[in-house]
Amino acid sequence: MISSNTPKKGKFIVIEGLEGAGKSTAIATVNAWLVKKGLPVVCTREPGGTPLAEQLRSLVKQADPSEHIAPETELLLMYASRVQLLRNVIEPALEAGTWVLADRHDMSSRAYQGGGRQLGDSLINTLRHAVLGTTRPDFTLYLDIDPALGLARAARRGELDRIEQEQLAFFERTRATYLAIAATEPNIVVIDAGQSIEQVQMALQQALEHANLCPI
Amino acid sequence: MISSNTPKKGKFIVIEGLEGAGKSTAIATVNAWLVKKGLPVVCTREPGGTPLAEQLRSLVKQADPSEHIAPETELLLMYASRVQLLRNVIEPALEAGTWVLADRHDMSSRAYQGGGRQLGDSLINTLRHAVLGTTRPDFTLYLDIDPALGLARAARRGELDRIEQEQLAFFERTRATYLAIAATEPNIVVIDAGQSIEQVQMALQQALEHANLCPI
Repeated sequence: MISSNTPKKGKFIVIEGLEGAGKSTAIATVNAWLVKKGLPVVCTREPGGTPLAEQLRSLVKQADPSEHIAPETELLLMYASRVQLLRNVIEPALEAGTWVLADRHDMSSRAYQGGGRQLGDSLINTLRHAVLGTTRPDFTLYLDIDPALGLARAARRGELDRIEQEQLAFFERTRATYLAIAATEPNIVVIDAGQSIEQVQMALQQALEHANLCPI
Repeated sequence: MISSNTPKKGKFIVIEGLEGAGKSTAIATVNAWLVKKGLPVVCTREPGGTPLAEQLRSLVKQADPSEHIAPETELLLMYASRVQLLRNVIEPALEAGTWVLADRHDMSSRAYQGGGRQLGDSLINTLRHAVLGTTRPDFTLYLDIDPALGLARAARRGELDRIEQEQLAFFERTRATYLAIAATEPNIVVIDAGQSIEQVQMALQQALEHANLCPI
């Protein structure tokens, strides 16, 4: 039974999408929306978000032609980084009533390693249920973009990392998996990220207002 | 059906034990025994053994007082390192007919993270069956030592890493788990590492000869 004196927990909002989908702009928009509501927010990114997890991010993204990274190694490093962030940052923040706004979370591994790398959902579901515990996002905004358009945008930003250097077919599988997950799970809203920035921002605002996240 | 033309695979020998149990000396002894038999051998260590896995070794062993490493993070990093070594070094070597002599493998995680960190065997069994595939050691030599004696030896070698700095109770749980695994699984021989070096070497030789590893 939840006592009426139980302190209010923060909520966990995740922004997902392919490279070049506009996640950074979306995070700025959602962050501004939360701040305007007077809510305390901590922003995270994955892989990364703690000193150790940021070092894992560098290792998993570095393009070292001398060593092939096995798909299972990549998957385990993503979950190592995720668990570290979850235990040390996300869960304590939510417990303290702070909202968490995350640049990627578990849906990324399901889409990239499960779909893109074709590791499938059985291994990943086993892993996520075994190590993540019960903390799940309250609300996910998935920014959907045509991979060719997203990669062209990402390439304009500078050098592509090891994962961004994958073939177009990899990102098409990743996008298809993102959409398949979004179609079957509640609390995931698909935003058309191929629209103008103004249209995307309006769609984000509407999604947030309709999500009924803040009964305050 | 295995054709008689199937090339002979290498065998996979693992040396296990607590810090200070004498693994390095045992590896030198076993390596010399294999070389004398004219067998090609590659030696590995865990965590580590590939450029990426060695970087993971540094991260998981570094003592950084500013960040607590969650037990599940440690476990996932051990398996990330292990999978990378398995796919890139161990499996290709065995396929090519080379023997593999490993300083630690999967039994270490079962003992240290399962027993020492008290993560239990359910999570670890799920993880190992999900990611390791079918490659298993042919023969494991577990060097059993009283943790207080082993740690005293390890401390004389120099500064202790993050895991070596754990309390004695951690290593007692780890040793108990090592012994419990050895008691129930075939192909694991327990060597009393509290004896003199000469006695340990003789026990190793006898174990190798009795293991009937080389029907050549």
